[in-house]
Amino acid sequence: MVAPIARDLEAVERVYTETLASAKPHLNRLIEHLNHYKGKRLRPMLLLLSARACGPVVKAHHILGAVVEMIHTATLVHDDVLDEAGTRRHVRTVNAGWGNKTSILLGDYLFTHAFHLTSTTGDARACELIGEATNRVCEGELRQTYESGNLNLTEEDYFDIIDGKTAALTACCCRLGAMYAGADAATIEDLAEYGRLLGRAFQVADDLLDLAGTEAKAGKTLGTDLEQRKMTLPLIRVLDSVPAAEAEQLRTMLAATGNHKLEQLRPALEQTQALSYARRRAEEFAKAAAARLERLSPSTCKDVLLALTKWSVSRES
Amino acid sequence: MVAPIARDLEAVERVYTETLASAKPHLNRLIEHLNHYKGKRLRPMLLLLSARACGPVVKAHHILGAVVEMIHTATLVHDDVLDEAGTRRHVRTVNAGWGNKTSILLGDYLFTHAFHLTSTTGDARACELIGEATNRVCEGELRQTYESGNLNLTEEDYFDIIDGKTAALTACCCRLGAMYAGADAATIEDLAEYGRLLGRAFQVADDLLDLAGTEAKAGKTLGTDLEQRKMTLPLIRVLDSVPAAEAEQLRTMLAATGNHKLEQLRPALEQTQALSYARRRAEEFAKAAAARLERLSPSTCKDVLLALTKWSVSRES
Repeated sequence: MVAPIARDLEAVERVYTETLASAKPHLNRLIEHLNHYKGKRLRPMLLLLSARACGPVVKAHHILGAVVEMIHTATLVHDDVLDEAGTRRHVRTVNAGWGNKTSILLGDYLFTHAFHLTSTTGDARACELIGEATNRVCEGELRQTYESGNLNLTEEDYFDIIDGKTAALTACCCRLGAMYAGADAATIEDLAEYGRLLGRAFQVADDLLDLAGTEAKAGKTLGTDLEQRKMTLPLIRVLDSVPAAEAEQLRTMLAATGNHKLEQLRPALEQTQALSYARRRAEEFAKAAAARLERLSPSTCKDVLLALTKWSVSRES
Repeated sequence: MVAPIARDLEAVERVYTETLASAKPHLNRLIEHLNHYKGKRLRPMLLLLSARACGPVVKAHHILGAVVEMIHTATLVHDDVLDEAGTRRHVRTVNAGWGNKTSILLGDYLFTHAFHLTSTTGDARACELIGEATNRVCEGELRQTYESGNLNLTEEDYFDIIDGKTAALTACCCRLGAMYAGADAATIEDLAEYGRLLGRAFQVADDLLDLAGTEAKAGKTLGTDLEQRKMTLPLIRVLDSVPAAEAEQLRTMLAATGNHKLEQLRPALEQTQALSYARRRAEEFAKAAAARLERLSPSTCKDVLLALTKWSVSRES
């Protein structure tokens, strides 16, 4: 890790912690539990790296780094209620520990604190960009829920969903980073597009993990997509590739209740090489993301952004 | 209704509808369902009346009127999931019709659209005030959930909860109304305090309705507070007023599962005159709210704000 970025990340952490701290002990226990959710801090990292690759890091970057992490955590807390997940990053989820009511309200608390924190930049434009991105996140999540069980989902539908639920926020992170570092309009657009493509690559890889990863490494309940009849890229590919009669049989199997779906799906997954196909698509997005960095002057942060495109498709957690 | 306010409310409705409209048919069906939730539009009314009582109504008032209604609707949608309520304003709730997942995400969608809409005023101060108020709303709701089942809740705790979940937003409405109408600092504070006290009066009256109202008039499931062991002012009063041994018996009854709690509670409610006590407290807040209007110049809107203080404690729905 580049030293200045490590210091920036610490500053982001401080803003995050100070913003959520409450005088109410019961609330503080809840907020402390969120520390266990602490993951890669990918979104603040993207924001800070985009900033340093373009110019100086300012106070707004630290504030907005905390904002994007708070929004991401809010969606995780609400996702866990939606998915009825019991484990996240190796510890029990908020809903498993405190119930759904508290989880819903804690997610709301994180959202409203994120928006209030954004306003402390004093810049309505930041509020607008964060608002736009979170609008898209919610649209994507709503569409995903609506389409759950739709076994005829197309690739186009799938990408519309992940552009909303994942790529809109990663694009926003990179845009804000570049913008507050004083980058010119073309560079800001390049970085926003880098963020969008990286988000796509990341989400396709995430969906692959749910099918082909190991729970021990991922640290969360896997196989939930199949269980919830949520169509992801490899599944769509399988159904598009096999003869119609076989596709119908697979749809019947996927629609049924009960376990062992992955085992039943495995022969078709191998025969159609659907996992390799999805991996290849993720790599294409990662490559396209990398291309958007070309106009940046050489720097260590540019190198890290470039390395992230490789990591996004090769990670195991 | 005063004619200009009716036109302002229509403008607020237009902003509200245009902001939430989506190109996705499945989303539009959900958003249309929210029209059934349409109630008194109390919060935009407070904002617009506070504005016209102080000065001219501007575009920001229409935008922020839609914002506060959207936030209120978001909390209703999430409340219905929390309460597992089946009916709201005489029609089925979103969670009863579409399930909890969709309700949680629709609430999030309303929150994020409200924040994005706020940013279109171009004023970070509006984002800050809306952010502050919604932070308090969530804190209040979280505390209410945490304290649910705490049969030793004090009056002070109760008022802290309702100041968050209700009064913070009504105070914010009046503050924003006065502020964007160009009122001076003292008037802005007067109106914010009017809004806070009116919100308190309104919430105490609402809690009374849940115990003493009729479902036909209120248009929603009543008695949910007792069912959820949520202590409200009359209940706290009863337990404070009866001898310790009787209070313990009542607590045991309230803590038990099963029905007919209201019937079992009725003798103690009558003996201690706890309903009258709560009504009297609501009236005190309403009166204190009215006093905050004294410095305003005479106007029809001032008269309506005054009338609202009376209505807040006498309504049946």
